[in-house]
Amino acid sequence: MRQAQTTLTIETRGIALYDFTHDVARAVTASGIATGLATLFCRHTSASLLIQENADATVQVDLLAYFARVAPEDEHLYTHRLEGRDDMPAHLRAALTQSHLAIPIGNRHLLLGTWQGIYLFEHRRMPHSREVVVHVIGE
Amino acid sequence: MRQAQTTLTIETRGIALYDFTHDVARAVTASGIATGLATLFCRHTSASLLIQENADATVQVDLLAYFARVAPEDEHLYTHRLEGRDDMPAHLRAALTQSHLAIPIGNRHLLLGTWQGIYLFEHRRMPHSREVVVHVIGE
Amino acid sequence: MRQAQTTLTIETRGIALYDFTHDVARAVTASGIATGLATLFCRHTSASLLIQENADATVQVDLLAYFARVAPEDEHLYTHRLEGRDDMPAHLRAALTQSHLAIPIGNRHLLLGTWQGIYLFEHRRMPHSREVVVHVIGE
Repeated sequence: MRQAQTTLTIETRGIALYDFTHDVARAVTASGIATGLATLFCRHTSASLLIQENADATVQVDLLAYFARVAPEDEHLYTHRLEGRDDMPAHLRAALTQSHLAIPIGNRHLLLGTWQGIYLFEHRRMPHSREVVVHVIGE
Repeated sequence: MRQAQTTLTIETRGIALYDFTHDVARAVTASGIATGLATLFCRHTSASLLIQENADATVQVDLLAYFARVAPEDEHLYTHRLEGRDDMPAHLRAALTQSHLAIPIGNRHLLLGTWQGIYLFEHRRMPHSREVVVHVIGE
Repeated sequence: MRQAQTTLTIETRGIALYDFTHDVARAVTASGIATGLATLFCRHTSASLLIQENADATVQVDLLAYFARVAPEDEHLYTHRLEGRDDMPAHLRAALTQSHLAIPIGNRHLLLGTWQGIYLFEHRRMPHSREVVVHVIGE
């Protein structure tokens, strides 16, 4: 049994879902681990992780619109306003999604379903450098 | 240290919570691992995983009604409509819950609390065959 | 490769976020594991786990107000009322957040981002003793 750990950096340019499935797959391949578990951890509280459909782009349009609706940018709703109009909604959208994901590995591949992609969900409007730690364990 | 991996198939018949705690417990027993970690991964984006109360059935009634309310079937809200009225709400409800769960193992048992059950949350109306990968690691 | 497991008890006094980052850090140090993965599991369905900003206290004020708004205490909305007005909203808020968290370990430390704290999110009004299992694996 052994493990490997690496940190991915994802450059974001505003509120969107950033597909980084291939970066995770590459880290799994590099680890040489055939059977095991990959865990991804987002080191931020205004960005998060999400597994979603990678086939039809309208799903992402609707997802973004949905989170904009359920955790809106509306200064009247929040006391935390110092870091910008989009900061408190960012924390709420992060709380509603995931800080981390775990995906089993089999035959040297992530055991994702056919339509599953791995996304960084950026919740802030300005460009950011986001770090995701990838931990792989197995044999 | 060793690991075991298996895939469970859960047949669903519409929007509901499907308790599969016993299937996971059986996979843990079969692994022979006494102390460790079980990770469950749902290979779909319109079904998800949830740990919830297993005692009072009204909790599930209210949970289903709640998710139907916060991510409603309403074609006016979504651009993604090709796969059916219930598809986009399914993706949203999956985004609000979990793609995976991890539960520690002690004394050869899942260390669930007294009232915790493990559920597959089916978000689609039609019957589906859902796959959940169970990864167990420990000794 | 080895593992360590311990159970933390967190005493709560009403609906709030309880920072227990230091308890988790102590468990990681006690394990002697330098590189690996820490998994936290909450053994309850009316309390949950959350990674959130630890810098500005107004974030927590807004988070609590938000969850009180999206999953309100309103008896007309729920059929599950036997265990108190705050019980069904507690299950919903737990469903919207996490039962478990996983955080990689590097150089004997949790690889949290600068502004990330680990919180138990208590959803009930009365005092409770909450158990969180900490599983650490690595070398």
